[in-house]
Amino acid sequence: MSGGAGALFATMGALGLAPASAAPAPAYQAPRRSDLTLTGRGAGKVVVLGGGIAGLASAYELGKAGYDCTILEARPVTGGRNFTVRGGTTATDLDGNTQRAAFSPGIYLNAGPARIAQWMVTLDYCRELGVPVEVFTNQNADAYIYNESAGIAPVRYRTAKADVYGYVAELLAKATDQGALDARLTTDDKERLLSFLQSFGAIGGRTDGWAYHGTTRRGFASYPGAGNDAGAPLDGPPSLADVFASNVGRYFSFEFGYDQAMLMFQPVGGMDRIPAALTRAIGPGRVRLGAEVTSVTDRPDGVEVGYRQGGRARTVKADFCIAALPPHLMARVPHNLGADVTTALAGFPVTASGKIGLEYRRRWWETDLRIYGGITETDLDLAHIWYPSYGFHQPRGLIVGYYNTGANARAYGALTPPERTERAIAQGVKIHGDVYRTEFATAYSQAWHREPYLEGAWTSPPWGTAGYNLLLQPAGHVYFAGDWLSHEVAWQHGAFVSARSVVTALHRRVLTS
Amino acid sequence: MSGGAGALFATMGALGLAPASAAPAPAYQAPRRSDLTLTGRGAGKVVVLGGGIAGLASAYELGKAGYDCTILEARPVTGGRNFTVRGGTTATDLDGNTQRAAFSPGIYLNAGPARIAQWMVTLDYCRELGVPVEVFTNQNADAYIYNESAGIAPVRYRTAKADVYGYVAELLAKATDQGALDARLTTDDKERLLSFLQSFGAIGGRTDGWAYHGTTRRGFASYPGAGNDAGAPLDGPPSLADVFASNVGRYFSFEFGYDQAMLMFQPVGGMDRIPAALTRAIGPGRVRLGAEVTSVTDRPDGVEVGYRQGGRARTVKADFCIAALPPHLMARVPHNLGADVTTALAGFPVTASGKIGLEYRRRWWETDLRIYGGITETDLDLAHIWYPSYGFHQPRGLIVGYYNTGANARAYGALTPPERTERAIAQGVKIHGDVYRTEFATAYSQAWHREPYLEGAWTSPPWGTAGYNLLLQPAGHVYFAGDWLSHEVAWQHGAFVSARSVVTALHRRVLTS
Repeated sequence: MSGGAGALFATMGALGLAPASAAPAPAYQAPRRSDLTLTGRGAGKVVVLGGGIAGLASAYELGKAGYDCTILEARPVTGGRNFTVRGGTTATDLDGNTQRAAFSPGIYLNAGPARIAQWMVTLDYCRELGVPVEVFTNQNADAYIYNESAGIAPVRYRTAKADVYGYVAELLAKATDQGALDARLTTDDKERLLSFLQSFGAIGGRTDGWAYHGTTRRGFASYPGAGNDAGAPLDGPPSLADVFASNVGRYFSFEFGYDQAMLMFQPVGGMDRIPAALTRAIGPGRVRLGAEVTSVTDRPDGVEVGYRQGGRARTVKADFCIAALPPHLMARVPHNLGADVTTALAGFPVTASGKIGLEYRRRWWETDLRIYGGITETDLDLAHIWYPSYGFHQPRGLIVGYYNTGANARAYGALTPPERTERAIAQGVKIHGDVYRTEFATAYSQAWHREPYLEGAWTSPPWGTAGYNLLLQPAGHVYFAGDWLSHEVAWQHGAFVSARSVVTALHRRVLTS
Repeated sequence: MSGGAGALFATMGALGLAPASAAPAPAYQAPRRSDLTLTGRGAGKVVVLGGGIAGLASAYELGKAGYDCTILEARPVTGGRNFTVRGGTTATDLDGNTQRAAFSPGIYLNAGPARIAQWMVTLDYCRELGVPVEVFTNQNADAYIYNESAGIAPVRYRTAKADVYGYVAELLAKATDQGALDARLTTDDKERLLSFLQSFGAIGGRTDGWAYHGTTRRGFASYPGAGNDAGAPLDGPPSLADVFASNVGRYFSFEFGYDQAMLMFQPVGGMDRIPAALTRAIGPGRVRLGAEVTSVTDRPDGVEVGYRQGGRARTVKADFCIAALPPHLMARVPHNLGADVTTALAGFPVTASGKIGLEYRRRWWETDLRIYGGITETDLDLAHIWYPSYGFHQPRGLIVGYYNTGANARAYGALTPPERTERAIAQGVKIHGDVYRTEFATAYSQAWHREPYLEGAWTSPPWGTAGYNLLLQPAGHVYFAGDWLSHEVAWQHGAFVSARSVVTALHRRVLTS
């Protein structure tokens, strides 16, 4: 291989993404007022079912061209699953559990989406709407891994990584140096690999048998200080057999994910800053809250939507409809769009998920454990514990005490909110000790599968099937939108790109009609 | 291994840091006013040489007990190497280069320390002083690795990691499965290791020869979108030989470091919020700026310090002195503390380091490359490129265009500031293309080894030597403090713990005298 800028850029792409060929921005072009005025057309009326991210984004984008949009939202706030709980938030679930959040000022729980990857269009909306963002702490070397099933104490990520990578490096260096991989590796490859492994694993050299003996990367019982205090390293490392038996490496790959790798982001002040900003931008009077859709009727010249609001049956007529409800709920709405539409809508399975916010009287994870954000990974039914990404050094703070799915979410969801809190704390005590109970102040829990007008967390779409494809096309004057019609389900990105897709199709139809 | 909380906590420590035995807070106890009043003693007078972090922290801590501290600082601001450049900052270096920063409002460069690890006592001072902190983006999967010497295009960290870890996993799985490591691994170990490697490397199974064929972890040329758009994966992966020849893994271990692993932090608004808060807390009238120390004379009953301020020679008398200047500068100050003190002070070698801040008219790294913070690692003479950890989505932003040491820092430092800018941009263009030049607005560069009253970046202390140990003891009434008398050189933590150590010793001496 030779250097030089010419040769260099000529080989771009060979080893991944070159800057000049970075992923092109989506070709999305927002509808413009001039598109209509220049062609002598008027902007039509559009009724949007559901004020979640897909519905809001649809109305926001269409509004750029002057479409007259009305959003029907059954819940008392816009945002859908983008739901931030603050002190005073009150809700009743499908089982009749009513909670009123008693969080302190400044404390909030993003009960739904909570993180945004750098490549997601969600960040473009934050920029466009003036919603400030900050780092979401999706990874922290000082957070723990706790595998109860392995019978071991919590281990800091930094320690676990040092030990797993150390032994992996030792083993591969031994095998390489002994010629076990000569069928796969040239002499040059071997030399380069051994050099990498020494750095990667902090292992000894050939004369030391490439052995891993520990490293300061593991962390310290007492960190280096003044004078001749070089710090007190942690005891260890444990043996190779103990490290692999502890299974501490089982979750390392989480942070490599194309959708989860740091850096991740969140809006300053709560994820619902996004729907709030969209709602403001859409303009006053366009969102009808507490409006439950009861029927959708396609007509030759438009669409008529029946809904119930304030105990009264009402209707709204429009040129087009964008149905941005969850598919399993839309499947229940009486309509004349055909049985195949109902069947297709019913073909999206629903996932359960739960999350609890535990407010603490003091931020013991910062002061006592030096954990400033991040996630402790467990094999407990609580799955993950999140330390807060905001409010560092403030008097109080909120931990996400569980964020789980499937059977675990259903088990917690079947409990009353106080029972959920008790169970979450009892589990968390296993990792954090008594402080997890003694400093606890108040909690709020969300069971998405038991939440009115949502009844689920997300879906696993039947991508590419006839039913899925059917819903990518309008049924008469009715379009469908939502993260469930995208390849980024459970992410706001999916809702945004689906909305953009529908807005583009609808606008093109108007311009070519 | 068996479960159960008893057995579980009994084995704590075996695999690293258990929460109950987390690193104990340093036993530091700040001097209290009551320590003196209860023993009928008066608080003495202390003169502190140097208003860097060690000097400020010394005066701040002693002030808690009422000591009457005076700080002599030669520079026009406190903080020492903790120096934040904003629009209007003006300075002249030892070569006569004068720069006046033309940065836009809200834009700053932390020319010195810029990051804080979670365990560092620096964060405790931020909390105590009410200095808000936010995440410093020390690691980003979307930043690049650029090895010009390998003749390859810039590669995103996420892509490089996926490929290196994929091939490492493939190789080790093959060797393990073929029995090459049977002398080191039991059957259980092998099974666990193979399970880990499949997750770690995203490799195939036994029937696939454990092969690495690429993964979505590499990233996409076009990320997943609406409908049936599953995204366009990057081309690749390159061959095993090409991946190791590219040497993209050479810097992976940086983020495992006990002092560099994420999460890292910075004060909101600039690192100099720390010295500014310390200076405020020390109180008005105690800091004399532009005060260059010219002599230190130990007397039987105290110490007398000569200094020059505003062109006039002055003196200050005190009961004690804390000398918190850089050791190589303190070595030049005439004193009567003995030749061995001078020799010891001169025994600290000085390192060169440079940093440049490049303000851009738009944040093209966010909009064009989807890089929100983090560090691009290079083998160029600029070493590292830092994307800003603050001001996301703002119109303008500041990139650290080089942060280098040794020969590279001296090479840049020998240039005029405009020449440094030109060289940094020409190098950065290799990675980022023309935008790196066309969107450039203005720059400010710091050559620490050419900075008056500092003349160096940091030192490599001769820990444990007679000379080093000599300076850990007072010379008469003169104590020495600074990061150079700690095991965390170049970190504010080192300055703080050194100051605490000296304050503790001085206060104990007063209380037992």
